[in-house]
Amino acid sequence: MSFDVAQVTIIGTGLLGASLALALRRRGYDGPIVGVGRRRDTLERARALGCFDHLTDSTAEAVGMAGDAALQLAVVAAPLSHFDEIFRRLADADRPGLIITDVGSTKQRVCELAAARLPCPQRFVGSHPMAGSEQQGPDAADANLFSGKPCILTPAADVDARALRLVVALWTLLRMKLLQLSPEDHDRQVAVISHLPHAVSVLLMHTAMKLGGLDLASTGFRDTTRLASSNPTIRLDILDENRPQVISALRAMNEAIGGLIARLEAGDDAAVRQLLEDAKAARDRWLAGRSDL
Amino acid sequence: MSFDVAQVTIIGTGLLGASLALALRRRGYDGPIVGVGRRRDTLERARALGCFDHLTDSTAEAVGMAGDAALQLAVVAAPLSHFDEIFRRLADADRPGLIITDVGSTKQRVCELAAARLPCPQRFVGSHPMAGSEQQGPDAADANLFSGKPCILTPAADVDARALRLVVALWTLLRMKLLQLSPEDHDRQVAVISHLPHAVSVLLMHTAMKLGGLDLASTGFRDTTRLASSNPTIRLDILDENRPQVISALRAMNEAIGGLIARLEAGDDAAVRQLLEDAKAARDRWLAGRSDL
Repeated sequence: MSFDVAQVTIIGTGLLGASLALALRRRGYDGPIVGVGRRRDTLERARALGCFDHLTDSTAEAVGMAGDAALQLAVVAAPLSHFDEIFRRLADADRPGLIITDVGSTKQRVCELAAARLPCPQRFVGSHPMAGSEQQGPDAADANLFSGKPCILTPAADVDARALRLVVALWTLLRMKLLQLSPEDHDRQVAVISHLPHAVSVLLMHTAMKLGGLDLASTGFRDTTRLASSNPTIRLDILDENRPQVISALRAMNEAIGGLIARLEAGDDAAVRQLLEDAKAARDRWLAGRSDL
Repeated sequence: MSFDVAQVTIIGTGLLGASLALALRRRGYDGPIVGVGRRRDTLERARALGCFDHLTDSTAEAVGMAGDAALQLAVVAAPLSHFDEIFRRLADADRPGLIITDVGSTKQRVCELAAARLPCPQRFVGSHPMAGSEQQGPDAADANLFSGKPCILTPAADVDARALRLVVALWTLLRMKLLQLSPEDHDRQVAVISHLPHAVSVLLMHTAMKLGGLDLASTGFRDTTRLASSNPTIRLDILDENRPQVISALRAMNEAIGGLIARLEAGDDAAVRQLLEDAKAARDRWLAGRSDL
């Protein structure tokens, strides 16, 4: 499964877009990589990485550079609230050989937008590489960000076979572990294992700000609150787009906390011990099966 | 402030006790270090570290080895539920030059126990070095575990001045940043920045076990759930001893989650953005002030 494509256009040259460019070079892709960004300073910092052949603020110019290539790829790596406009621009710039994917953290609305805006939605395949960091911008780019991590694809039933092959080849080249889910299942599951942990990190920080103790806090607090340092703009978009699923996950967390309070109040040490032991066993087992973590 | 003492006895040779022995050697303490443990296998693994001069299951034997030394130190580094018995044994083995401290994660009950059990509670100083790991046992010992981290002392009003000086010298030698709090304030604050994050980690793991998504989980989930891999026995003791403060912290967290749910349901994006931005700003500022983290 070779990644054989005339050009890769990356729309958005922040942490993920710039890491993608670095990773493509690291894994031997030697075709042109074109970056598209709105902000001049971000483009300048992306240029400093030395892995983009061209940087522009025009999607049409970027896609046009590949001419009538049989196969070129555009990867949307921008905040979710920009997707609507980006898909419109990709629609204007469309070519028969243009395959489109993305790195967005939600998939239901992204796939709906792709279906609504793109002239040939069959050439779009939703992706969500589960790789990130609380840092932001091209300066934080990391050629190994994707390596070994899960990547979820959410292709539509009528997806173009070439498109799916190319997107699979992209993430395989970057050594990701591919999973396939419906956009709905994706959004429900990431609410639990990504959006909820982020919200909880934020709220742990607020609880400490309110009740005190930061002077005493150490590595455990640092790690449980790491996600609270994430980019608020990107995170707000995620909470916005995955609102019902995030609310469900927050409610489940509230119930779990209520259950622990009840057991502590009842002095039911056996039940609390079981809770701690089950969580430890499950996490240790999960981590043992994940060589990338 | 030199750490000048005839012998250090460490009661409990698990992660913290063994790390303490390694750290004392690393920082140049060359007097005898004696380890006391109940389990033969843990003592054998502690022996393999090569930094204990003697290992025994008898507190009386350990303390007796220093003879009538003018100053010797015992550090209790065992699970909190063992403290009552350990203090009784230290009472039986007491000498006029014996100073006692501990590394327990709660301080109110520990200080009450010391006052009740020890013949001269003035020679006890409660300590809580904010250093740990989700790992356990002497094999996970780390000579740098304490370096740069906060250490809270909770001396009683009538503390023996020699005792306080020696315990300050101990943690200063290990390069900890000392703070002094009442046992009550300590327990309230660690409930917020240590016991709550642990409980939340455990419950995030349970929520994922119940609702699914572990196959997709990545570094964010790994870090927010790290504390769920902690030793259940030690953690159960902490929840037990700090029950009212932990319950208060859990209630505050539930309220915070309820507040976020309400804002998400109301579509109040400005408030959610503010919440994310405030948490990020506070955490980034906190972390910038902490060269040890």
